Amino acid sequence: MAGTVAILGGTGQQGGGLARRLAQAGVSVIVGSRDPDRARETVQSWAASRPIEVADYAGAVAAAQTTVLAVPFESVDTLLAAIGPHFAEDAVLVDVTVPITFAGGRMALVDVPEGSAAEHVRATLPLRVGLACAFKTIPARLLAALDAPLDCDEFICGDSDAARARAAALAALLPGLRTVDVGPLVRARSIEHMTALAIAINRRHKVHDARFRVVGI
Amino acid sequence: MAGTVAILGGTGQQGGGLARRLAQAGVSVIVGSRDPDRARETVQSWAASRPIEVADYAGAVAAAQTTVLAVPFESVDTLLAAIGPHFAEDAVLVDVTVPITFAGGRMALVDVPEGSAAEHVRATLPLRVGLACAFKTIPARLLAALDAPLDCDEFICGDSDAARARAAALAALLPGLRTVDVGPLVRARSIEHMTALAIAINRRHKVHDARFRVVGI
Repeated sequence: MAGTVAILGGTGQQGGGLARRLAQAGVSVIVGSRDPDRARETVQSWAASRPIEVADYAGAVAAAQTTVLAVPFESVDTLLAAIGPHFAEDAVLVDVTVPITFAGGRMALVDVPEGSAAEHVRATLPLRVGLACAFKTIPARLLAALDAPLDCDEFICGDSDAARARAAALAALLPGLRTVDVGPLVRARSIEHMTALAIAINRRHKVHDARFRVVGI
Repeated sequence: MAGTVAILGGTGQQGGGLARRLAQAGVSVIVGSRDPDRARETVQSWAASRPIEVADYAGAVAAAQTTVLAVPFESVDTLLAAIGPHFAEDAVLVDVTVPITFAGGRMALVDVPEGSAAEHVRATLPLRVGLACAFKTIPARLLAALDAPLDCDEFICGDSDAARARAAALAALLPGLRTVDVGPLVRARSIEHMTALAIAINRRHKVHDARFRVVGI
């Protein structure tokens, strides 16, 4: 079980969509925010079916078994430095960041020295915290449209079976999402490239919610 | 129209599958091989519905409007050096290579300095020859099983609209394949990562033909 879930960046489109969909599925959700007062206003405006708590980043992490990292990739380093000491025993971090840049109007993945955002996170996260990836290829806009069927596959990778299982359990709570375990954390390189490809397809085909299904499993 | 199509590496699983499926669709196919005599035996054993020609690499390229590059990535440099001068006017090369390595039992993409196999090919190919990518994410084993329905999407990218259109026209001849144009050649980085992900899924889920569909277009 995922236990209490903290969502850092939980008032953004992606984090907010996850927070509301997980709450709808019966999960105890805490939105972690840099500005809890403003976050509380946003959360109240959702009129969620189940109360969603709000805390600062460190407080949210400390109270959760599973933490979802849904801040922009640029904010990851500062955030991880601040929350590192606060993770509970057996905590798992679920990274959903993708280092996309639109510099000069051209969409590209930022060249992350470790190979992927997930591996970059691993290099900073305390070793005792398990790390998995999920929700990287599902369009934020679709997540935030609570009534929209997700209707796609979600790729899970991670640094241990336990971390992957935790992320898969979260994803399994969202109707219309099939989880596909793709193995070790290094596979995040490919998963993040799929996000880039989905964005390229959106732009080229003038759609908004391109996403993927695996055929043959 | 794709015109006469040369398939370099046309006796391998991937090239052979493409050769036979395209011939079945009514295309004039020339298999280009390092060893035309042996290739001729292989091609005769196919008992194709339509005759498939055989030539050496240079001869196949010279006779074709569209050339499919289906040799192992390790052979690409030597091959391109040999065939460069032989391309016809308005020729297009369709690159299907993916630089996968299984060194030490771990599957990974080779770190190609140009960013992808396709961009590596572009760096060597004569400028007057257009370059597109296709058939990178479709399992070779499935292509070679002529009666198996392909039932997936195929990602096309390339360095010009004309090159992409040529590759898409080829792919459109294979029933069960929907083409998805993802734009410029740099997108090959993501397409090749999808191949890596499909192989990871095959290995992890003990299947053989994992492939992709795009939802939302």
